[in-house]
Amino acid sequence: MATEYDYATNRLTADNTAILLVDHQTGLILGVQDHDQNEVRRKAQALARTGKVYGIPVIATTSAPTGPNGPLLPELVAELPEGTPIIHRSGEVDAFDDPRFEEAVRATGATNLIIAGVITDVCLMFPSLSARARGYSVHAIIDASGTTNVLARETSMARLQQAGVVLNSTVGVISELLRDWKTPAGPGTAGIFSELAMPFYGAVVASHASAGGAAS
Amino acid sequence: MATEYDYATNRLTADNTAILLVDHQTGLILGVQDHDQNEVRRKAQALARTGKVYGIPVIATTSAPTGPNGPLLPELVAELPEGTPIIHRSGEVDAFDDPRFEEAVRATGATNLIIAGVITDVCLMFPSLSARARGYSVHAIIDASGTTNVLARETSMARLQQAGVVLNSTVGVISELLRDWKTPAGPGTAGIFSELAMPFYGAVVASHASAGGAAS
Amino acid sequence: MATEYDYATNRLTADNTAILLVDHQTGLILGVQDHDQNEVRRKAQALARTGKVYGIPVIATTSAPTGPNGPLLPELVAELPEGTPIIHRSGEVDAFDDPRFEEAVRATGATNLIIAGVITDVCLMFPSLSARARGYSVHAIIDASGTTNVLARETSMARLQQAGVVLNSTVGVISELLRDWKTPAGPGTAGIFSELAMPFYGAVVASHASAGGAAS
Amino acid sequence: MATEYDYATNRLTADNTAILLVDHQTGLILGVQDHDQNEVRRKAQALARTGKVYGIPVIATTSAPTGPNGPLLPELVAELPEGTPIIHRSGEVDAFDDPRFEEAVRATGATNLIIAGVITDVCLMFPSLSARARGYSVHAIIDASGTTNVLARETSMARLQQAGVVLNSTVGVISELLRDWKTPAGPGTAGIFSELAMPFYGAVVASHASAGGAAS
Amino acid sequence: MATEYDYATNRLTADNTAILLVDHQTGLILGVQDHDQNEVRRKAQALARTGKVYGIPVIATTSAPTGPNGPLLPELVAELPEGTPIIHRSGEVDAFDDPRFEEAVRATGATNLIIAGVITDVCLMFPSLSARARGYSVHAIIDASGTTNVLARETSMARLQQAGVVLNSTVGVISELLRDWKTPAGPGTAGIFSELAMPFYGAVVASHASAGGAAS
Amino acid sequence: MATEYDYATNRLTADNTAILLVDHQTGLILGVQDHDQNEVRRKAQALARTGKVYGIPVIATTSAPTGPNGPLLPELVAELPEGTPIIHRSGEVDAFDDPRFEEAVRATGATNLIIAGVITDVCLMFPSLSARARGYSVHAIIDASGTTNVLARETSMARLQQAGVVLNSTVGVISELLRDWKTPAGPGTAGIFSELAMPFYGAVVASHASAGGAAS
Amino acid sequence: MATEYDYATNRLTADNTAILLVDHQTGLILGVQDHDQNEVRRKAQALARTGKVYGIPVIATTSAPTGPNGPLLPELVAELPEGTPIIHRSGEVDAFDDPRFEEAVRATGATNLIIAGVITDVCLMFPSLSARARGYSVHAIIDASGTTNVLARETSMARLQQAGVVLNSTVGVISELLRDWKTPAGPGTAGIFSELAMPFYGAVVASHASAGGAAS
Amino acid sequence: MATEYDYATNRLTADNTAILLVDHQTGLILGVQDHDQNEVRRKAQALARTGKVYGIPVIATTSAPTGPNGPLLPELVAELPEGTPIIHRSGEVDAFDDPRFEEAVRATGATNLIIAGVITDVCLMFPSLSARARGYSVHAIIDASGTTNVLARETSMARLQQAGVVLNSTVGVISELLRDWKTPAGPGTAGIFSELAMPFYGAVVASHASAGGAAS
Repeated sequence: MATEYDYATNRLTADNTAILLVDHQTGLILGVQDHDQNEVRRKAQALARTGKVYGIPVIATTSAPTGPNGPLLPELVAELPEGTPIIHRSGEVDAFDDPRFEEAVRATGATNLIIAGVITDVCLMFPSLSARARGYSVHAIIDASGTTNVLARETSMARLQQAGVVLNSTVGVISELLRDWKTPAGPGTAGIFSELAMPFYGAVVASHASAGGAAS
Repeated sequence: MATEYDYATNRLTADNTAILLVDHQTGLILGVQDHDQNEVRRKAQALARTGKVYGIPVIATTSAPTGPNGPLLPELVAELPEGTPIIHRSGEVDAFDDPRFEEAVRATGATNLIIAGVITDVCLMFPSLSARARGYSVHAIIDASGTTNVLARETSMARLQQAGVVLNSTVGVISELLRDWKTPAGPGTAGIFSELAMPFYGAVVASHASAGGAAS
Repeated sequence: MATEYDYATNRLTADNTAILLVDHQTGLILGVQDHDQNEVRRKAQALARTGKVYGIPVIATTSAPTGPNGPLLPELVAELPEGTPIIHRSGEVDAFDDPRFEEAVRATGATNLIIAGVITDVCLMFPSLSARARGYSVHAIIDASGTTNVLARETSMARLQQAGVVLNSTVGVISELLRDWKTPAGPGTAGIFSELAMPFYGAVVASHASAGGAAS
Repeated sequence: MATEYDYATNRLTADNTAILLVDHQTGLILGVQDHDQNEVRRKAQALARTGKVYGIPVIATTSAPTGPNGPLLPELVAELPEGTPIIHRSGEVDAFDDPRFEEAVRATGATNLIIAGVITDVCLMFPSLSARARGYSVHAIIDASGTTNVLARETSMARLQQAGVVLNSTVGVISELLRDWKTPAGPGTAGIFSELAMPFYGAVVASHASAGGAAS
Repeated sequence: MATEYDYATNRLTADNTAILLVDHQTGLILGVQDHDQNEVRRKAQALARTGKVYGIPVIATTSAPTGPNGPLLPELVAELPEGTPIIHRSGEVDAFDDPRFEEAVRATGATNLIIAGVITDVCLMFPSLSARARGYSVHAIIDASGTTNVLARETSMARLQQAGVVLNSTVGVISELLRDWKTPAGPGTAGIFSELAMPFYGAVVASHASAGGAAS
Repeated sequence: MATEYDYATNRLTADNTAILLVDHQTGLILGVQDHDQNEVRRKAQALARTGKVYGIPVIATTSAPTGPNGPLLPELVAELPEGTPIIHRSGEVDAFDDPRFEEAVRATGATNLIIAGVITDVCLMFPSLSARARGYSVHAIIDASGTTNVLARETSMARLQQAGVVLNSTVGVISELLRDWKTPAGPGTAGIFSELAMPFYGAVVASHASAGGAAS
Repeated sequence: MATEYDYATNRLTADNTAILLVDHQTGLILGVQDHDQNEVRRKAQALARTGKVYGIPVIATTSAPTGPNGPLLPELVAELPEGTPIIHRSGEVDAFDDPRFEEAVRATGATNLIIAGVITDVCLMFPSLSARARGYSVHAIIDASGTTNVLARETSMARLQQAGVVLNSTVGVISELLRDWKTPAGPGTAGIFSELAMPFYGAVVASHASAGGAAS
Repeated sequence: MATEYDYATNRLTADNTAILLVDHQTGLILGVQDHDQNEVRRKAQALARTGKVYGIPVIATTSAPTGPNGPLLPELVAELPEGTPIIHRSGEVDAFDDPRFEEAVRATGATNLIIAGVITDVCLMFPSLSARARGYSVHAIIDASGTTNVLARETSMARLQQAGVVLNSTVGVISELLRDWKTPAGPGTAGIFSELAMPFYGAVVASHASAGGAAS
């Protein structure tokens, strides 16, 4: 059976990890006010593309997507790895309350879950707590999640921390997967960073190439 | 005897929960400067209406309401469920130091308390600590509470967390009660969200209805 | 013919003023990020109710309300004086490019226009410039308008100022209409302030009444 | 007859200036949210004490002080020069609409008026416009005034500027009156700065004295 | 000869306007700290695509692009209309000091110039002043420009305003060109707004389409 | 021997508590940039006056007060209870490294220490850690302390929390001492709140009294 | 006689310009709270070094430097061109009220004055107004100046603008002097930018050089 | 063998401590947006100079310095103690994954590690976690580190805290090493504070010296 996540001895790898994207829907995203709405969108895309670059299973889910919550963000759909299961829940607030979602997660065989959700205090919170209760290690990606006000985020971070969830950033979790820039995922990761996760890096890369710099 | 709150096994429900609104008075509210004063008012109303929608007991209390602290906010009174006890304390800073308040809480039979108060570092803090000491699970609703400066809130959040209080948001706690949008409380919850707890949602709902969208 | 607005000699009155509310629609409002979205909504309501309290003509208009821009905000509709014309434009960006809007404004006989719009740099901007070109005095109500970022608002304020538009606040323009709290509009104005335009005042009023204070 | 203010040729002096403090009342001050409420209170006190130190006439006025607006701030009353007229208006929004206020201002013989008021977009705005219309030079002291939101202040500043009002700071206007630290008002001004207008200066002065520094 | 810009009588159109993009280079963009660096990049792209959608001439220029300033932003190059002249200056700070740039602008035949530049106080400032001196109407697009600190932007806005430059936003200037959503540029403009200039609109559009809403 | 602090069973009282004010000096205070410098000064005064109102021992200390750090803030000296020991350290960074300070604290007989210091990450930090090591309960008053940047405060709060220090606010700690407004310390506490710890309350009290309200 | 400044026809040059640094003293700088104190210090240094790089006369002045205001900032003294006159005023608030300062300015023969001062609303303000009255063109460098609060800066900017002063940034004014990077001042200017005026540029330059990039 | 860090019994000293500076490179620093980029640079320099003043071993490391990340900051190199090892990693994200780095750290004999890194969520995070796993005590210096957004920093702080890392400030850690201003490191520490770690202190020191104050 799989070993529990521990940075020192059992880091995140493509083999022991799955990525869960919860309720990044066109209606819900419009309520994100605790930090830059566009950043949430770009970072959710970055996580989706990480699935492709690293061959990590991604599961997306939505809450009542034919209602006001709206469909999954189109630009996020475009970044999902081919064949990504999208579980459309009919009303369950906690994605794990939908057995199809729970089963999809179990089917990945992952022991570590990278989760992002909109809104943070609901769609990220409950699945993270439920995942912990089922024995998964959880990395909650706060900057790929968003909510309606700063206090909702701050209280969520405290509660997640108390539940033993690792609070993490999009770049932090991808960098742990990368481990070494000399591995095959290096160029794909540079693309994720430059175009989606921290666009300043794209400008730095372009300046370096233009000045005749070596690849690295 | 009632079981202790645990998200995984014993979530908040109408049967195991009570809502305590502490000192949302017209004089005290004017000192709220750590976040939007109007948001505190709307979110306290949201909690009161949650009592009505879910049939959860609500208890309100005030500190010296004929003095400078002023009466309970009129718009909050208007949202309280019929028959809500309002305990007017004559000077006790910690609401639990007034035996009538303590008894009113006990009489609800709840094991989980949702508490909001103005000001955060006093009126939310002491009842939360006293409730913990009496064995209640406590959810402190930070965005339905407010205080005179950001540091008073931040230190309060740290202290509450150390005391084993769950830091939570208004929308977070209501969503846990809801559990599934297909339950009878769904429409009432949509109303609380749209009109009080996160008004952006009202605009999203109206757009959706206008476009001919299905109810959900 | 009517005299031009001049604070010293020809203030805003119910007889020389009209209120124009431009594109406060459920889809557009969701893009307001330069200041508190809820404040824009409350202040647009405040201007609508001002029409009722003072007997001032109000005209509302929308841009393509069956499309993504969405319908007029429901809570704003509820505050419009009975019989308020609502001009639904089929595509004209500047409301004055729709002859029905221009005619409706002319029909009020007003020389002074109080205008608010979402978004500031488009829906408030162009009608304000067109109104100036037609000889109207214009008060642009910045806090009842909103746009997608702070710089869009700041550049709009500079441009409006250069065009001879008076930049004003919701409370500023209502106070000028009021002129004296002893007039019949006094109580209605206190209601607008307390419930919509500056809710802190409602708390102050309630504290005062509770302490046994005289009406004023 | 008195000469118009011009910095180059006819600066502010004790002989040509009066100070008007408009509606710094205990109820209204509680709505100040555009900048630090305590700073507004200290700076209004600084202006009052400037009257004493420089022998400049001060006039205070209130709007309906027995109503919710409340009495003049007690700490401001304590700083007013002896014999300062306080005009209690019964409902006039613009202080100049009360003939007693207008007459009190005229009686000072000043050509330059230093005005501060709460709230900025009403109580500072209208008297400033009316003063301009009567031929006074006006210095509007924005940091000794306050209002309910940042946009109300920003629009007020633009409107005042368009009306030919000099936008000024508390320290700026006192420094112009001072002109030279070697004059008799020097020590009194150091006190105003250290205790009220910019308290950092009090710490600097105490450090300097403690280190054995000369008086200046 | 062409008529001067006036909103009321001679608005911006594809026939009388050119778009100048000054020094949006990979090295310079990294110094943008006055507002969101990613927003500057997206809005410069939006202006470039506006050239394509409306058939408006675009001119790009760079300052010493083989030095530390770096090459033009790659994603901006990708949005430039085919055949866009790119003037690489060898050291002239003011783009108009390079006769090739001046001539390229003249060759467009435009009387109105839409200008954005990085950094605001240099690369936007000097060409705007020089354009005014040559008789062009200038719209300075502040949110598609950026600089190293907020004060540099604020002083630039004041100086540009004094020089008779129209301060404008990306969405404001595109909306003026659009004039009516029913014109052929409507769909292309919706794309610019949704993908680049105000991405919230993309979410609103997708929600509307998903709910079965009509095109507009 | 004294019992350890526990809110539920052994709250702060005049008998079990001492107040330590560390390095609120005129030179050091000038570096406070993480929150309002004037607020730090007022709240340190509030704690000093609390010593007087409640008869709680206060100990003040300074670091090299004849050097650049400067003397104790004069307005703080004015609020210290008569006979307050002031320990002038000659170079020890941690006040407990000066045996005179350690002895003075021991001599109070207190088991609970209320500590504030400038700067937070040094002058509050080390005495708090040393006090914990000696078995005292410690309440670190963050809003009566200050430091040079926000991150220094945030890291200090985390480190103090890890060391078992209670993070608290000025108003929070005084309110716990008060316990009931009907006790003899009530009026003195109202004075501390109104004049020093939260001046908004002074305005509320004055409004209430003016309206004819009862004492409480 | 010299021609008045006009960007189009008579830009700032080493021959027509002088730089005035007013009251950047160790005591006054400690009160700067409207923006980053360290930035003010670096930018004042940048202006001083500009004198050296371009051979432009610099004049420094202090107000009562043996008193609490303190001596000129040591790091600024280190950047002043050799022989820079430093006028120590004994009490005059407006530097032009000291005839030695006025004469020193006149002796430079400059028609354009670049002025920075601490504090903005006094030490920058009055010399700027006096310089305008004497016929000089004035560039007020707001980011090399500082004051005690944001409103003092904003009102100062409005007042300076009304007096015909050009509001400018440190980088803006240096770039105008530079005119072309190929001139002899190019390398010295790169040093000013990289080390003092916008340090991000130093990082960009070092990256470029390291990558093997050409000098420009 | 060395004893574990404990403030009470085994503080940081020159004998038990090493300083690790991770990836303060010219390309990476340009992405720092969570707090002042210049402050990160100055504080990294302060830590380097601390190595010199206290004789503490410093180790610097870079990630792919010939690639876009760029070389070590030149001003940081200038502050490194002579002989400081600089480990240039060829791709390992976690510095401890490079055996040369691990060995260099071990060779210092230190039990306590002071670590700063750019970016916080990667270059500070992973070495801190790896150091903890190897039994080192770790002080993570958050204000000498930086990352691309505030949430990445906040989540990093929470994660580091959970791993038993002491969150600390630059001034906090240096002050602990200092222990007493009368020790030989006193003057050097004053220099670090005045020039790099908290420049306000340099102004305070200069004022004090100028006033004739004693050395301390």
